[in-house]
Amino acid sequence: MTTREGSRVTTREGSRVTTRKMHLVAYLKSGPNASYPSTWRHPSATLDDLFDPRRWEHCARVLEAARFDACFFADGLGIPDLYKGSYDDYLGRGGQLSLLDPMVIAPLMARATEHLGIGVTLSTSFIAPYVIARYLGSLDLISNGRAAWNVVTTGRDFEAQNCGMPGLPPKEERYDMADEVMEACDALWNGWEEDALVLDRERGVFADPSKVRYANYQGKYISTRGPLSIPRSPQVRPGIMQAGASPRGRAFAARWAEMIFATPATKADSLAYRTDIRARMEAIGRNPDECAVLPSMTVVVGETESIAREKAAHLESLVDPELVIASSSWSVVADLSKVDTPEAMAAADTNQGVQGHRDRMLQVAKAKGITFAEAVRQPRALVAGTPSMIADIMEDWFTSGACDGFILPPTIFPATFEEFGRMVVPELQRRGIFRRDYAGRTLRENLRNPG
Amino acid sequence: MTTREGSRVTTREGSRVTTRKMHLVAYLKSGPNASYPSTWRHPSATLDDLFDPRRWEHCARVLEAARFDACFFADGLGIPDLYKGSYDDYLGRGGQLSLLDPMVIAPLMARATEHLGIGVTLSTSFIAPYVIARYLGSLDLISNGRAAWNVVTTGRDFEAQNCGMPGLPPKEERYDMADEVMEACDALWNGWEEDALVLDRERGVFADPSKVRYANYQGKYISTRGPLSIPRSPQVRPGIMQAGASPRGRAFAARWAEMIFATPATKADSLAYRTDIRARMEAIGRNPDECAVLPSMTVVVGETESIAREKAAHLESLVDPELVIASSSWSVVADLSKVDTPEAMAAADTNQGVQGHRDRMLQVAKAKGITFAEAVRQPRALVAGTPSMIADIMEDWFTSGACDGFILPPTIFPATFEEFGRMVVPELQRRGIFRRDYAGRTLRENLRNPG
Repeated sequence: MTTREGSRVTTREGSRVTTRKMHLVAYLKSGPNASYPSTWRHPSATLDDLFDPRRWEHCARVLEAARFDACFFADGLGIPDLYKGSYDDYLGRGGQLSLLDPMVIAPLMARATEHLGIGVTLSTSFIAPYVIARYLGSLDLISNGRAAWNVVTTGRDFEAQNCGMPGLPPKEERYDMADEVMEACDALWNGWEEDALVLDRERGVFADPSKVRYANYQGKYISTRGPLSIPRSPQVRPGIMQAGASPRGRAFAARWAEMIFATPATKADSLAYRTDIRARMEAIGRNPDECAVLPSMTVVVGETESIAREKAAHLESLVDPELVIASSSWSVVADLSKVDTPEAMAAADTNQGVQGHRDRMLQVAKAKGITFAEAVRQPRALVAGTPSMIADIMEDWFTSGACDGFILPPTIFPATFEEFGRMVVPELQRRGIFRRDYAGRTLRENLRNPG
Repeated sequence: MTTREGSRVTTREGSRVTTRKMHLVAYLKSGPNASYPSTWRHPSATLDDLFDPRRWEHCARVLEAARFDACFFADGLGIPDLYKGSYDDYLGRGGQLSLLDPMVIAPLMARATEHLGIGVTLSTSFIAPYVIARYLGSLDLISNGRAAWNVVTTGRDFEAQNCGMPGLPPKEERYDMADEVMEACDALWNGWEEDALVLDRERGVFADPSKVRYANYQGKYISTRGPLSIPRSPQVRPGIMQAGASPRGRAFAARWAEMIFATPATKADSLAYRTDIRARMEAIGRNPDECAVLPSMTVVVGETESIAREKAAHLESLVDPELVIASSSWSVVADLSKVDTPEAMAAADTNQGVQGHRDRMLQVAKAKGITFAEAVRQPRALVAGTPSMIADIMEDWFTSGACDGFILPPTIFPATFEEFGRMVVPELQRRGIFRRDYAGRTLRENLRNPG
């Protein structure tokens, strides 16, 4: 039974009343900046610690103090060189780059925290499921059940070429392969029963081998024999995050995702997306509440509205227009130095994994009444305001069913998370729509029971 | 000019006199025990912390306090099921297993230390060089130049089957591929010049793209485009460790290795091996002093000789004979439950990566005057004695040119390293054949300049 009381949605489960609460996930990038361009230039953004583990340990502690569900590293295997056929602008001006492999940072962030989910991006197109399952199972073990996997099929040919392939397989095939990778990983993770480790020194029984099974997974693209040598971890399968936007991507997300990273331009776009995902989940027999649809929102918080607006204007003043268009070229997989020629856009490779980015830019163009060529020259919209103004917007999206929470990229790293945690989170907590403390032990428990 | 003074070998380089010193590297396994069987049963071996990061952080700190050059995780992708065609004995009785992915543990150990080299095993047969280069470059960056890579081509079909291949390619082909993987990684690691990062906020120049180059590596088996998104790390190429024993393996080691993990049964076997490796290095124009040949030695130290002997006898009493033969079956890639039938041994797959293990068992058989079938039923020899007795043996091997130091596996974890650090290391230091403090900043500097 679900009732709506003002801005609260309350669900009665047996005798227990749970207020629906939002989820917050931090979007991280191990490089100059996250999705908003040029923010590394901000005087408060730290740069001398780019390769210092303490950068990431501090970030993790700040996010945990703010009661975020999780953080994850968006990631890709390479330096984009789509704009003008060169990486000069993207790299030179400081685009979204992975300057460190998140596989190295994630264990350090897990170690620095007790509750925060820690996610890495691993591509199903390049890495054997055995290697993926081993890493994530281990991360889940050492973190007591807080590992997350942002599943990507990889969207750009240069990444495939870095990994020894001539280019990407067609999108449908990539997703079919990704389904098999998930099945193979599941077979590996489920190969160990919970009590397989015996550790009986006297009898010399280390494990009960009858409680460990081969995976024997054989798909069309993927096979693995097993067993994994890593015992069953607290979550068994790590928290699954995904960003499917194309029909095939949405089908994948509806089947597997527990957190969806969405990039709608407006509340209406987000509502339409979430409604579609929930319908897809119901259609295949999954409880739609088992997946949180999380649109990305780039917030700038100020003590007063005018401070927030000035801060946003300052960030906008730092933006390098060449970097915006170089970044958009990466997003839509086309050389946008030729965006004004129809040929250039027609030549853009629609095989690649970019539906979400294209959708967002088309939505922006429509919402603002501008052309696509104008939209790709604009950085993401900033949501600037006082804590209560930002909370109003978040609450509005949340209670109107447009989302289950938000993905928050930093503008200024790490200040955005520090400010958000100190100013906006308490306001969300006062309104009863965000946890005051972690209710669960694992990431999945926190996703299912937001406290 | 090199002179020998008693047990000291002194090299005069310009006006600086450097005494030759040994190198020590710890052999680790993220599971029940390392190469000596059944040691998890020892009352002092810790078991309640198998998945606790502190197990490994403590170990790293102990090794650093003992001034070890490095530690590394021996590793494989699976649970061996060669003995009786089943993993029941190997897993059930607690063989050498990776219960955690060392890729998750290594960053934590790097974080807990300042000088110790930290090595992981990554197979050149399964993982794209881009993924390897990215991980190791990042580990080298966050550790300030202490990453090591134990390069393996993988020696057993079940590991290939776990990674989706029907079986291993032939050994020669695996090594040809491994050479290409090294070349590809080098091309990626060398793609960034040291001063490519500019970080000029005012001018908006994050990096100088002219100082970053494509790898454009194209081999027979391996290709990668680059650039890596990870900037140049302190060591550029991590410290390379290898264990080549076959002629092709030795050729590979002579070309690439800076630390060789050797498993000779006797000093004479070790001397012959090291002599061969040095000759091979000279033949291809490498300075033989750039590679440390490190035989494995399993030590048991006691305050008195009788205590040490009793401790060794106690360890031997814990040994499970079924586990020994199951482990030897893994070593030589044959089902040794049938070792007494000539057919079984003839059927053993000589394609696989086991020359070192076979050599060692044949050497043991010869030295002890026993059969191969008897040798595979014996655990590795323990070197038991007082600190000065153990130092005598180590010094003897070292000064006679049989080695450049040792690989030390723990018998009791972590007690072996604690005891060795407190009792044997000071004795080696008194004799002037082991560093009192780290002389270099990076692992490679410590290998080249042992202090």
